[in-house]
Amino acid sequence: MRNILCVWPVTDAHKKQLETAAPDFTFEYIEANLLTKEQVSKAEIILGNIPAKYIPEARNLKWLQLNSAGTDEYVASGILPDSVLLTNATGAYGQAVSEHMFATLLMLQKKLHLYRDSQGTQSWIDYGQVSSLVGKKVLICGLGDIGTAFAKLCKALGAYTLGIRRREGPGAPWVDEVFSSNALDNLLPEVDVVASVLPNTPDTVGIFNEKRFSAMKSTAFFINAGRGNAVDQEALYNALVTYQGTDKGIGGASIDVTSPEPLPQDHPLWKVKNLIITPHVSGFYHLPETFERIVQIATENLKKYENKQLLSNIVDFETGYKK
Amino acid sequence: MRNILCVWPVTDAHKKQLETAAPDFTFEYIEANLLTKEQVSKAEIILGNIPAKYIPEARNLKWLQLNSAGTDEYVASGILPDSVLLTNATGAYGQAVSEHMFATLLMLQKKLHLYRDSQGTQSWIDYGQVSSLVGKKVLICGLGDIGTAFAKLCKALGAYTLGIRRREGPGAPWVDEVFSSNALDNLLPEVDVVASVLPNTPDTVGIFNEKRFSAMKSTAFFINAGRGNAVDQEALYNALVTYQGTDKGIGGASIDVTSPEPLPQDHPLWKVKNLIITPHVSGFYHLPETFERIVQIATENLKKYENKQLLSNIVDFETGYKK
Repeated sequence: MRNILCVWPVTDAHKKQLETAAPDFTFEYIEANLLTKEQVSKAEIILGNIPAKYIPEARNLKWLQLNSAGTDEYVASGILPDSVLLTNATGAYGQAVSEHMFATLLMLQKKLHLYRDSQGTQSWIDYGQVSSLVGKKVLICGLGDIGTAFAKLCKALGAYTLGIRRREGPGAPWVDEVFSSNALDNLLPEVDVVASVLPNTPDTVGIFNEKRFSAMKSTAFFINAGRGNAVDQEALYNALVTYQGTDKGIGGASIDVTSPEPLPQDHPLWKVKNLIITPHVSGFYHLPETFERIVQIATENLKKYENKQLLSNIVDFETGYKK
Repeated sequence: MRNILCVWPVTDAHKKQLETAAPDFTFEYIEANLLTKEQVSKAEIILGNIPAKYIPEARNLKWLQLNSAGTDEYVASGILPDSVLLTNATGAYGQAVSEHMFATLLMLQKKLHLYRDSQGTQSWIDYGQVSSLVGKKVLICGLGDIGTAFAKLCKALGAYTLGIRRREGPGAPWVDEVFSSNALDNLLPEVDVVASVLPNTPDTVGIFNEKRFSAMKSTAFFINAGRGNAVDQEALYNALVTYQGTDKGIGGASIDVTSPEPLPQDHPLWKVKNLIITPHVSGFYHLPETFERIVQIATENLKKYENKQLLSNIVDFETGYKK
């Protein structure tokens, strides 16, 4: 008997869809926090991010389909045997995360965070000049699913989009000019918005440091929805507070990710007026469309698995990215 | 000697542009609050919203070019002689106001007003499900410059747009379906967003009342950037607080206009969690592009005036609208 263990909050329609795609298998559905070792040990395929501590029990596992795009826990050395295929949910989060980033960018441009603060004190205060995306240059660091979806939104409002990707390659959809990583320092002084959706890799840790914030325009907005550790948070604080209004400062920022998470309650970033903090909520299943896409990715992969075809979204253990 | 009085904060480049368009005239530039009766009395043309109390002095006035789209003060009976042409700045505000409305709509959908409140108490709280414009129906009441610009933004994010206009007429750009005013009650239960950019006319006062909020979906978002008196504010309060979560409630709202303005500090609307209040800031010159467009409208009209052609943006004294 070949088993598939699914830890997702699926509907009956989803179950039918998944089971139709893999008729040779028996499906078990369970909430991740009710999981038993026995269920894990029987599974040939697991659908969902089971806690990494259960992985050693997965003696029959051949394929793990994550519901996340990030793979940190599972690509750590020694966790998964080399024989296990790991696939992620790249492609499911583009809409949700890009829309969240975009909404916070407009909020910064229109000073809506300041107006919300004034509303809290019942104060009718005019904060003056605002800005628009029309004709602005937006630099997007990371041109996967989320980065290109964000580029599309910015272009729809009249921005010019520049993108940075780690690998040389052809153009990316909705991105007017594509560069490789080493162009970053040359581009920072030229752009009005810097948006990061970089994943957690050795190359990206602390990439947004004091030197790079200083290089940005003093009116630039910085957006991070990738990983919190891409940002040197002390440098971000200084760019927004210590150096505010000077050449070394920036105009504002919004971050959906911090380091650590949750951000400790006494962290100085919480009180920075020109910073919008959201508690890592842009992804997950917060937008219903995201979960639909995850189930769709799993369904397509189940069909391929049944037909002994190459799966989509296979993760490269060395980079943590989709291969 | 024929005089043009301009009360706008023009640059030297603007002055050159205006003067080139009307070479037969002498220009006087003055801040509105430093205006003298004598300056007003000499002017054949006035560029800008001078205080209405000065109008009786304007004995030589033939044309008043406003910098506003709204004309309330100037169309009131007895203010301007019938012989004076009145033109407004319809067309200048579409970008600024529509972008502001759009930003607050995304803020509501992504719960960014709630996250901003949490940030104020240094709290890492997840508010769960969000929504997207993809596939949503947006009803726009008022299909002038602002309404159609707003429709364009909503369509760019994947919405389906419906519009209501007072006069029968052909389609409007970016609006998928156009209706006349009497379709309002039939449309309200069908749409996910209701956006109003209605001007102040006898027909629009209190148009958004308890009956109409009750007719909206309990998840609907309501946006008002037209005139504050289009909304029965007690009914809005009830829809957001008293009837929250029931059939008679709505999901959230954002208003840039109130009645009166400023909204009194003890007004109960200030404290409504699911309401975003901004202090009538979406227009004015807060977006630099707006002022550029106003000067452009005036320049084109000066050329027409010199050539004895029909001016653009002539206001109909009966409706207060552009003719």
